[in-house]
Amino acid sequence: MKKLHTLSVLLILAANTLIAQESIFGEAASFLSPDLSSDGRVTLRLRAPEARNVYLTGNLLRQFKDTLSDGRIVGKERMIMSKNHDVWTITLDSVKPDFYTYKFIVDGVETIDPNNSFVARDVNNVSSVVIVPGNKSAYYLTRNVSHGTLQNIWYRSGFNNLERRMSVYLPAGYAESDKEYPVLYLLHGMGGDETSWTELGRLVEIMDNMISENKIQPMIVVMPNGNLAREAAPGYDSRGLSQPEFNLPFTMDGQFESNFPEIIDYVDRHYRVQRDPEFRAIAGLSMGGLHALYTSLEYPEKFGYVGLFSAATDPSSYNPEGLPEIYQDRATKLKRLWKTARPLIYVAVGKDDFIFAHSEEIRDELDALRVPYVYNESDGGHEWSNWRHYLMDFLPRLFLPVSQ
Amino acid sequence: MKKLHTLSVLLILAANTLIAQESIFGEAASFLSPDLSSDGRVTLRLRAPEARNVYLTGNLLRQFKDTLSDGRIVGKERMIMSKNHDVWTITLDSVKPDFYTYKFIVDGVETIDPNNSFVARDVNNVSSVVIVPGNKSAYYLTRNVSHGTLQNIWYRSGFNNLERRMSVYLPAGYAESDKEYPVLYLLHGMGGDETSWTELGRLVEIMDNMISENKIQPMIVVMPNGNLAREAAPGYDSRGLSQPEFNLPFTMDGQFESNFPEIIDYVDRHYRVQRDPEFRAIAGLSMGGLHALYTSLEYPEKFGYVGLFSAATDPSSYNPEGLPEIYQDRATKLKRLWKTARPLIYVAVGKDDFIFAHSEEIRDELDALRVPYVYNESDGGHEWSNWRHYLMDFLPRLFLPVSQ
Repeated sequence: MKKLHTLSVLLILAANTLIAQESIFGEAASFLSPDLSSDGRVTLRLRAPEARNVYLTGNLLRQFKDTLSDGRIVGKERMIMSKNHDVWTITLDSVKPDFYTYKFIVDGVETIDPNNSFVARDVNNVSSVVIVPGNKSAYYLTRNVSHGTLQNIWYRSGFNNLERRMSVYLPAGYAESDKEYPVLYLLHGMGGDETSWTELGRLVEIMDNMISENKIQPMIVVMPNGNLAREAAPGYDSRGLSQPEFNLPFTMDGQFESNFPEIIDYVDRHYRVQRDPEFRAIAGLSMGGLHALYTSLEYPEKFGYVGLFSAATDPSSYNPEGLPEIYQDRATKLKRLWKTARPLIYVAVGKDDFIFAHSEEIRDELDALRVPYVYNESDGGHEWSNWRHYLMDFLPRLFLPVSQ
Repeated sequence: MKKLHTLSVLLILAANTLIAQESIFGEAASFLSPDLSSDGRVTLRLRAPEARNVYLTGNLLRQFKDTLSDGRIVGKERMIMSKNHDVWTITLDSVKPDFYTYKFIVDGVETIDPNNSFVARDVNNVSSVVIVPGNKSAYYLTRNVSHGTLQNIWYRSGFNNLERRMSVYLPAGYAESDKEYPVLYLLHGMGGDETSWTELGRLVEIMDNMISENKIQPMIVVMPNGNLAREAAPGYDSRGLSQPEFNLPFTMDGQFESNFPEIIDYVDRHYRVQRDPEFRAIAGLSMGGLHALYTSLEYPEKFGYVGLFSAATDPSSYNPEGLPEIYQDRATKLKRLWKTARPLIYVAVGKDDFIFAHSEEIRDELDALRVPYVYNESDGGHEWSNWRHYLMDFLPRLFLPVSQ
């Protein structure tokens, strides 16, 4: 064994000293948080010797709402944690498999879990993340399979001459083949952006895993930013680090839909894609459902598949001066859409969705027109848990070989 | 003006109801945090009526260390905030322009700033982010210029037959031209991963902005993951959401360096690159400096530029049983490197760096061999503030046209 010299000793000290010098490594905890057991028990822990009360909050509590040991506070639910030797703990039993977000409330202040490095931003809310693995949620985790590529690309928009950012998923094998691929345009909701489907929708993991199991066709997924006034997600546009806003202009005024062909154009020019409508799908959640619907109604020759996930399909309140032409005469346009390309129309909504009526109205119109559609009525409301499931239910219906 | 019907009214309620239903929008604060004034004053605020003490911590306090009004706690610095009408506030004057991270300590618990949506993870530490704009840090913000593409791609490694993830930056115009581009291989430090240079190094913004000002050549930047035992950054590998570790196997045992040609191979096959050594650079920070150095020493015919940023160039302590061959006879190999391709060697280190001696030893060896190099001795220590500056100092030296 070689003699260690002075520099080696310095380097042995490196890990600890680095910590001190840049505070890059958090305090070592003597516990895990989150701590998952194989039977779905989730334990969260927080060292907080000085705190007088610590609560757990977030959609991790969804299924426990009725059994909360503490009252509600405005718009949120919380569950009290108990203190033992300076560590506050809570254990939830039989948590349904899903991707969840949570926070602690420490003496009235919301915090992420300092022992959990995984966080997600939803509009302006940064929370800790935990995935309880199960039947569907197992698809939200990376597996040792062939992986697709995620790209952040920019296209020039004719609407305001801005460069605008899109997320593009290319399936495994794209770079190694000469094949042309079908394309799914996948749209986010109000307050979201081009990162929402990858960050909260687990798009990359779902695609990689479902493709590797041959449950779905290999396809390109294009996720544009639905706010035409913005270049990109917060932090990536030239307005600097200005905080996210929920309500933005140019989102429900028909401009996004009427300008959609420039996005298809960019994709057709830059990627190896199949250009016939039976190889092009459009889908979106909430506001993205509105965008998907009216884009397909305006350009009925372009899409073979239209997916509406908890769609917010009534733009009236955003256009008090009167509806833009693109939002008018919907029934007539639905009929034209059906006659033009006979697309597969998919409508999914949760029983408790506060805009359940929007989907109902669309279904009534389709029924009256005798236009067929797939309908998926789920439990739950207007939430990512449903949107991931709708996506996984929608994807296997896309781009099926003619022989099937 | 059209009559609003029931669905419209429902939609008017949408924003507020959505908030209640998924807690996607944080509580509206009546104040900004962080709040930047044009003269470099930074104010942080936190509503915490019940808290008994609130401190500010993080490298935002770096320049104020000597004037802290409160004592130190182990390995960290903190500054007390003052309470006024339930809101704790601190104002820092004349903060040096830079990219900073910070947290609050609320009754002993570290939290991010709940009013700031921008966070960054450094190893296992998630902090709030603020950029104070100035001479250099203005390059860390997206501008309205032509943007490059960022890709997360996967290559198959022969070392353990894993698919492994890399970040690849392609300059603006790449997709629209037939040009071949030079390549910079840019490596992270211990505890980092393939996301470190983009998340903490502001690589995309720096490249876009410097290229748009013609300060540097358009180039491809490839950022592999330096831990051969890992597929990808925490959360993106098939081990699921297992928490980041600082010390990993297969990082300083010579395997990363000896297997480096498979990365070059992948890049040469998948991108339009100039393949001569004068169009290929390698650089890294801390452990990535070790990787850059010994990779170039092992494959001297491959690189025209070698950048060592606060390099941790002594792997002895990680190899107590004896140094692998690749780490032996450094002086001989330095001489061979110089004779083979006469690369531009760049050494940068901060005066206060705890491994300053590593760079000193390399310089002594180069001096003894009469091999020229560029030396940049800066203020400060082993920290991202320096690494971003070193990158910005290194980039303009790369791939200069022969005519210059």
